[in-house]
Amino acid sequence: MEHQPGRRQYVKFTFFKLMPEWRRLAERERDRQLAEFREAVEGWSERALVRCYSTIGTRGDVDFMIWQVSYDLADVQQMVGALMGTALAGWLTTPYSYLSMTKSSQYVEKYSGPGRDRFTRLSLAPGEHKYLFVYPLTKVREWYGLSKDERQEAMNQHIAIGHTYPSVKLNTTYSFGLDDQEFVLAFETDEPGDFLDLVQELRPSMSSAYTETDVPIFTCVAATAAGMLEALAGKRQAVPA
Amino acid sequence: MEHQPGRRQYVKFTFFKLMPEWRRLAERERDRQLAEFREAVEGWSERALVRCYSTIGTRGDVDFMIWQVSYDLADVQQMVGALMGTALAGWLTTPYSYLSMTKSSQYVEKYSGPGRDRFTRLSLAPGEHKYLFVYPLTKVREWYGLSKDERQEAMNQHIAIGHTYPSVKLNTTYSFGLDDQEFVLAFETDEPGDFLDLVQELRPSMSSAYTETDVPIFTCVAATAAGMLEALAGKRQAVPA
Amino acid sequence: MEHQPGRRQYVKFTFFKLMPEWRRLAERERDRQLAEFREAVEGWSERALVRCYSTIGTRGDVDFMIWQVSYDLADVQQMVGALMGTALAGWLTTPYSYLSMTKSSQYVEKYSGPGRDRFTRLSLAPGEHKYLFVYPLTKVREWYGLSKDERQEAMNQHIAIGHTYPSVKLNTTYSFGLDDQEFVLAFETDEPGDFLDLVQELRPSMSSAYTETDVPIFTCVAATAAGMLEALAGKRQAVPA
Amino acid sequence: MEHQPGRRQYVKFTFFKLMPEWRRLAERERDRQLAEFREAVEGWSERALVRCYSTIGTRGDVDFMIWQVSYDLADVQQMVGALMGTALAGWLTTPYSYLSMTKSSQYVEKYSGPGRDRFTRLSLAPGEHKYLFVYPLTKVREWYGLSKDERQEAMNQHIAIGHTYPSVKLNTTYSFGLDDQEFVLAFETDEPGDFLDLVQELRPSMSSAYTETDVPIFTCVAATAAGMLEALAGKRQAVPA
Amino acid sequence: MEHQPGRRQYVKFTFFKLMPEWRRLAERERDRQLAEFREAVEGWSERALVRCYSTIGTRGDVDFMIWQVSYDLADVQQMVGALMGTALAGWLTTPYSYLSMTKSSQYVEKYSGPGRDRFTRLSLAPGEHKYLFVYPLTKVREWYGLSKDERQEAMNQHIAIGHTYPSVKLNTTYSFGLDDQEFVLAFETDEPGDFLDLVQELRPSMSSAYTETDVPIFTCVAATAAGMLEALAGKRQAVPA
Repeated sequence: MEHQPGRRQYVKFTFFKLMPEWRRLAERERDRQLAEFREAVEGWSERALVRCYSTIGTRGDVDFMIWQVSYDLADVQQMVGALMGTALAGWLTTPYSYLSMTKSSQYVEKYSGPGRDRFTRLSLAPGEHKYLFVYPLTKVREWYGLSKDERQEAMNQHIAIGHTYPSVKLNTTYSFGLDDQEFVLAFETDEPGDFLDLVQELRPSMSSAYTETDVPIFTCVAATAAGMLEALAGKRQAVPA
Repeated sequence: MEHQPGRRQYVKFTFFKLMPEWRRLAERERDRQLAEFREAVEGWSERALVRCYSTIGTRGDVDFMIWQVSYDLADVQQMVGALMGTALAGWLTTPYSYLSMTKSSQYVEKYSGPGRDRFTRLSLAPGEHKYLFVYPLTKVREWYGLSKDERQEAMNQHIAIGHTYPSVKLNTTYSFGLDDQEFVLAFETDEPGDFLDLVQELRPSMSSAYTETDVPIFTCVAATAAGMLEALAGKRQAVPA
Repeated sequence: MEHQPGRRQYVKFTFFKLMPEWRRLAERERDRQLAEFREAVEGWSERALVRCYSTIGTRGDVDFMIWQVSYDLADVQQMVGALMGTALAGWLTTPYSYLSMTKSSQYVEKYSGPGRDRFTRLSLAPGEHKYLFVYPLTKVREWYGLSKDERQEAMNQHIAIGHTYPSVKLNTTYSFGLDDQEFVLAFETDEPGDFLDLVQELRPSMSSAYTETDVPIFTCVAATAAGMLEALAGKRQAVPA
Repeated sequence: MEHQPGRRQYVKFTFFKLMPEWRRLAERERDRQLAEFREAVEGWSERALVRCYSTIGTRGDVDFMIWQVSYDLADVQQMVGALMGTALAGWLTTPYSYLSMTKSSQYVEKYSGPGRDRFTRLSLAPGEHKYLFVYPLTKVREWYGLSKDERQEAMNQHIAIGHTYPSVKLNTTYSFGLDDQEFVLAFETDEPGDFLDLVQELRPSMSSAYTETDVPIFTCVAATAAGMLEALAGKRQAVPA
Repeated sequence: MEHQPGRRQYVKFTFFKLMPEWRRLAERERDRQLAEFREAVEGWSERALVRCYSTIGTRGDVDFMIWQVSYDLADVQQMVGALMGTALAGWLTTPYSYLSMTKSSQYVEKYSGPGRDRFTRLSLAPGEHKYLFVYPLTKVREWYGLSKDERQEAMNQHIAIGHTYPSVKLNTTYSFGLDDQEFVLAFETDEPGDFLDLVQELRPSMSSAYTETDVPIFTCVAATAAGMLEALAGKRQAVPA
């Protein structure tokens, strides 16, 4: 996907769950379906920004997640449609789905502390970190009743605490009017414990006090399309030596 | 559908979801079912105001939406019944359904700012914009405890902000006593990013502070009946060049 | 059902939904099942107060509703049991169910305004109006902390507004301790728009401010047992000329 | 079950729902399954305190309920396990389940009004009343912030109102830490209208104002194991003369 | 699993439910599936900290629970994946799933009362107690607005009450940012009545007043892998003499 400066992107997080009945199919049939699905994902990966994650073992209600970023909403629709056209889709549900867009942050622009350059909001660049933590966020309406200065102060505090955990990278996207939540946040890191400590440390912050909802929270483990799908079939589950 | 001045209309938004099991059927059978369903929709489109939208890729819990407007509730019932009489209905669920009516707005009538003529409430005229954003709205009861002047002032502010986004057209319908929500709002636009910015800008408004619930929010992409159904079967999903 | 003055009645609203799989059956089998179900309903209609309503097209989560009134709870149980004994029950679910009783209203007895005689609470007499609006109602506990005079005043206001819509008839029933809600309200009218306006007009009333929950709201269309069931099978859906 | 003074009992309310698919089975097969299930219940009834109730027609989400009381939690587990080992369990779900224990009430011990001896909390003795009303109860945390005297006063008021309905017998059980609710209450009576009036009369009481949740409420009709199961199959539904 | 001082552990509670359809399978097939599943569990038990619990009869929405503790999140993923690779997984759902980590407690470190040494937070050592009570915990945000001293005081009170029930052992784990809850608490004891009394006694405590949610609560009965699975099949349900 070619970078287009100044243009906003569509961002989609789609969480999939296999119906238990799929596991009753013959192994050969399951392998065939997974191979077809993998090809569909990989075909799109060549043309668009697509990232794969496994949630096997981290949640009970979803099995894997595909993260798409595109300048065109039709791309998002067409890729999900293509996946729904595979045989595997006969046993797939999508329990969670989050649509959002990128946007220049009013808070980051006015923030003058350290690490400012780590935030590039109009154009997402998902990295190669091992773990991704995703959750939808909605603030209480009282938050929007604060003055701009009060909100800026709260966000400065929030951003400053975030900077004390340089191993954690934040991607903020906006869903106002497009989906049920106001924001979708995606944190990348190699150290889940660091992210846990960061979230706990942010709890007393002013910004956190104005949170209406920030669940569900998804711990996602980065994988190739093949790895994500092998985990579904219990193939990668060799007990470690 | 002939325009009948001064008469209120029934408005229905029905969201459909295909069961995954449908995707296990032979392609020929699926094609046959989609063709039958399309004919049922198109037959009604000739006689009533019917609009088709795809939600593939924008949400995980619905696949497509049909918007009906009629002077007679029996029309709404009969069309939904006709759709339920197709073979496809054996694999269709309707996770969301919103029934409402048109009504002259007390607020718009008293509003004297710019753009007043863009609001025609008794008779809806869904346009040909590419995107539709639908959500049910219920105000907190405290809203109704405000004086009429206070509410008018809040709505003036709301309407004025809306007018700064002329690319967004609003259709307000009323559900008091007919369905779970108080209003169903439907925004038409060609620019999702504009609508996102508008909704975010409205957050600090007084009217927004008195919102009890405004979810789920559906991003719907306008389509012909054929296009809406082809998207279901993964046929339209040719990867763009 | 013989009228028994001074005796309280049991009231039951049962909402039914057909599983999509039913629509995959052969038409002959579906017709057979509907005929058997209709006979079961009609058999009871001769002996008890039973009313049939279609919700096809007005809601997505239910298809039809049966309203029973009896002096004996065993009647309610036996009729539902009889319906569950039909073949159709193999594809029927009951997503909503409301059990209540009649009771003399303390508020109506003390109300001295116009229209008092329209309220007969101990014995229900469902009319022949075309539309029925049903919803469960629970007040916030603070309502019960008001003095009796305050509550009487609130109800006088409520009743007076109701009387300005003479086309709407109210049936109030009581569920305290018998079911999840405190009341089940059933409004009969031939004009849905009137009922919508009435409910909207009641929003600023004191009584409305003390409402904990009044959803879901069901728009029900009166039908014979045969009409209610034909609507399920898509037979009545001839497009109007 | 032998009475063991001074020892606390485990109490279990299990609510069962048959899947609609069960009703598609041949009548002979259904009869066989019901007979096997009845034997499993009756076998336990000889050894432990087991009571059967039908909820056909009183709720839409459950069909019957089994009430177990035992000094040993293993008894509860083993009986439920035995029921799950029957053929009928292939079509049974358990939408609601409440686990609790008996406990001496601090409030009743200190209450000196009339009717005190009707409360025996450590050992339950379900009677032979026709109706049972069951619901889980959780108080708001503010309740526990009141002084002991304030709570005792509130409970005295509550108990005194209860005594004006001598036809209603209350069984209070405790679930703190064992299940989602704090208490499970089970009221026995032959007159549902009395219980309805009692609950409504308690609404203005101080104790009621501190209720966090007291739903769902189940109206249960006492039956033998055979009667409870016959009601499922639509056999007992002969229309009364 | 070798003890690694100073290193945090991943903790996973996975709750499983068998679909009713599984119980329609031939006994021989069910036995084969259970044996395969047991081997998968036992294979991991040799290499990692794995504990098995039955919830048959204590809840209606889950049948059994597996508790995993590991220094590596990949272990958790791989074991769940391995279980999903068994034949039994074709009929298994996972209605509840809690992921957390160990962490040194700021409160326990500063607590100087009795029993301090019973708390070892970085490394869990599930005991051999008969019952385990598990629940997810989230505090209200106001809790985090208290000063550190206020929170320490609240926790001192909480811990002190806990110590009066020496038969109850507490395992506290942390989920901030990893899963929907803030904490997952797991209490071990041989006396459910003691735990019930402890929870009730903690209700008036300051810490309890700041609880946002602490449900669902799971009563889990310790078992071997074989015993946990036999309970599913109704084999262990011999009526006690």
